Amino acid sequence: MSGSTQMPAVSPLAPKSLPEIPAIGGVRFATGAVGIRYKERTDVMLALFDKGTEVAGVFTKSKCPSAPVEWCRARLASGKARALVVNSGNANAFTGKTGAKAAAFTAKLAANAAGLRANDIFLASTGVIGEPLDATRFEGHFEKLTAAAAPGGLLDAAKAIMTTDTYPKVAVARTQVGGVEISIAGMAKGAGMIAPDMATMLSFIFTDAPINAAALQAMLSKGVETSFNAITVDSDTSTSDTLLLFATGAAAGRGAPRIESASDRRLAPFKAALQSVLLDLAHQVVKDGEGARKFVKITVEGAASNTSAKKIARSIANSPLVKTAIAGEDANWGRIVMAVGKAGEPADRDRLAIWFGGIRVACKGMRDPGYDEAKVSEIMQQPEIGIRVDIGLGKGQATVWTCDLTKEYVAINGDYRS
Amino acid sequence: MSGSTQMPAVSPLAPKSLPEIPAIGGVRFATGAVGIRYKERTDVMLALFDKGTEVAGVFTKSKCPSAPVEWCRARLASGKARALVVNSGNANAFTGKTGAKAAAFTAKLAANAAGLRANDIFLASTGVIGEPLDATRFEGHFEKLTAAAAPGGLLDAAKAIMTTDTYPKVAVARTQVGGVEISIAGMAKGAGMIAPDMATMLSFIFTDAPINAAALQAMLSKGVETSFNAITVDSDTSTSDTLLLFATGAAAGRGAPRIESASDRRLAPFKAALQSVLLDLAHQVVKDGEGARKFVKITVEGAASNTSAKKIARSIANSPLVKTAIAGEDANWGRIVMAVGKAGEPADRDRLAIWFGGIRVACKGMRDPGYDEAKVSEIMQQPEIGIRVDIGLGKGQATVWTCDLTKEYVAINGDYRS
Repeated sequence: MSGSTQMPAVSPLAPKSLPEIPAIGGVRFATGAVGIRYKERTDVMLALFDKGTEVAGVFTKSKCPSAPVEWCRARLASGKARALVVNSGNANAFTGKTGAKAAAFTAKLAANAAGLRANDIFLASTGVIGEPLDATRFEGHFEKLTAAAAPGGLLDAAKAIMTTDTYPKVAVARTQVGGVEISIAGMAKGAGMIAPDMATMLSFIFTDAPINAAALQAMLSKGVETSFNAITVDSDTSTSDTLLLFATGAAAGRGAPRIESASDRRLAPFKAALQSVLLDLAHQVVKDGEGARKFVKITVEGAASNTSAKKIARSIANSPLVKTAIAGEDANWGRIVMAVGKAGEPADRDRLAIWFGGIRVACKGMRDPGYDEAKVSEIMQQPEIGIRVDIGLGKGQATVWTCDLTKEYVAINGDYRS
Repeated sequence: MSGSTQMPAVSPLAPKSLPEIPAIGGVRFATGAVGIRYKERTDVMLALFDKGTEVAGVFTKSKCPSAPVEWCRARLASGKARALVVNSGNANAFTGKTGAKAAAFTAKLAANAAGLRANDIFLASTGVIGEPLDATRFEGHFEKLTAAAAPGGLLDAAKAIMTTDTYPKVAVARTQVGGVEISIAGMAKGAGMIAPDMATMLSFIFTDAPINAAALQAMLSKGVETSFNAITVDSDTSTSDTLLLFATGAAAGRGAPRIESASDRRLAPFKAALQSVLLDLAHQVVKDGEGARKFVKITVEGAASNTSAKKIARSIANSPLVKTAIAGEDANWGRIVMAVGKAGEPADRDRLAIWFGGIRVACKGMRDPGYDEAKVSEIMQQPEIGIRVDIGLGKGQATVWTCDLTKEYVAINGDYRS
């Protein structure tokens, strides 16, 4: 491709400030520079967990998952975790049987250094697909990381796992379990399902709440549906998407009750806080979508069911024509109609209504005769845009978040290796 | 959007020459300039058919189809056609009940001028979505068109229905039915499912073979699966896609037998010829995809079933990451793995094999250690590229054609209205 496009150092949609990140009792972080691919930056993070830490996870639905995803899935059965190792620069994906060996070798090195069992160590890798990961690079490093590991340090860890991300993504929440203060802090890297060779959406969330693995898993599986599973940058699914939730239980030392079921009523505030962290991180991933200039919230209501609403919302959010129109600041509701029509879900052209911002631009199967183009044009110039579609058939509703599709997206992904 | 990109007048993938187009017995064409949207060009075509002409059709699966699509669907029950009217500049889509009235009024005007029944007239419209079509514009025109209609003229008709197309798309075939020479000639406009406001893939095919509507419909419905339903530009489905096949039966006057069933063995050469016309037109639509610089054939074999193979091939063909890589002339097989993985179909990472051109780049779940990057690089620089994927599980196979995703696509679709 000729003439690469000048990209800003940081996405214009990045948060204006970072939250204050509390140390999570029972978690220690360390980062290092192993030089897997990047020079002069950190590219590995280690998180060490106190004994008794419970874990839950959600992974890519790809039929061709990375070696670390398969490693984590197998480890998750125990519900116990003592460490997390994440590297950037190489995804260890589509690396055949040598990939599985590299993952096992990495876990063994970390286990030996930290005096743990390899089976209690969780792994994630992000970076180039299809290049063998030379895990011998880690030799000697985990000893230093173990020695250096300290409370706090989550922001540095978030920086070590970045690839094409233009800013580190962190989110925090404070809440109570059984009247005792607990904290939740998480990190993510993107840019979501889009990330190409630089594959992978990764997110790791830590809490000191004493909650067992089964309850964590139930909350995470439910919470992900309306957060990470409700975002899309370009409809492409990474081989490596990984979301892990670790609960150290350190707050039990301050009197927090041990929770063993997701239906325990004392979990209500925790659920809300966890959801806020999931949603915050998911939104940050979209806002750092490759080439993104607009953050778009798509709400579909009046569909035959919630599932139907989500399919329609995804069809709109993934449509290249809708996304290029938004990049062009064009309130092109004809393309929304097209995307509703192609979703394959129940819809009646003559009952559709469409809003940009608060302004109805189409209803009863045609352009709203009263809408003010100048006002809609103002809305389209904002960095955050809301699109609402009423299908007019039932009570199903869903929200999906996405970004626009710009020439920079094509430049980043077309120029990447060439 | 800043700085619109310079587009070539004609797609670099356009055919180098036009075929000689035979007059089809029983069909007369005329074109006119009504000025619906475009200035100084033709924007309406009329085709008049001799009595006894049979018709079959395939339409968009959109749940929000255009008024002309609904009109044609209702007319198709009779299997008879006497005229086809197509306009460019306005798609008469998402125009509510006034859209249906505009379609009926157009048919009535044409019927009055040509001395036909409105119900024997087929309609198609392509252009802006959501703007009411003022059918009174046609008043007085159909009289002139009827008077001017003459054999031949298919190429002029193909030009009159263009919107963002950079070249007219025609294809012809000659074959025999029962030992008698017959002709097939067709036209199409694109650019396929992509076309935005300028919605619509339209294709019209004409033959003098004496074949009844039921047999035509069976052949068309089958033939479309491996031609028009096997192409994709950007995964977006138009509200207006229309494919009609008209058989005048004029060749019966030269002794061709009347065919009443698609299973009639005398149809074998006709089926092959029809398929060649469908495939030729479908390929031309892809080659004129907005911003297209590369024509890409994606073959998936070894899948669990043919249906599974087609889903995987479509997942590859629709992936923005695969398409931007091809634009960048990058043999990025990691993105092919990603697209196979996200298709949701049976696949085993460690059985996958991937070829660009004739060169295997990946096998057994990892990079092919022997592949020659320089040779693959040469292949990627060609205007036509073949990608083959062996899933290694079964005997299912399918082929899908697509084009690359370039900055020009984003420019065309982002700058269009703004």
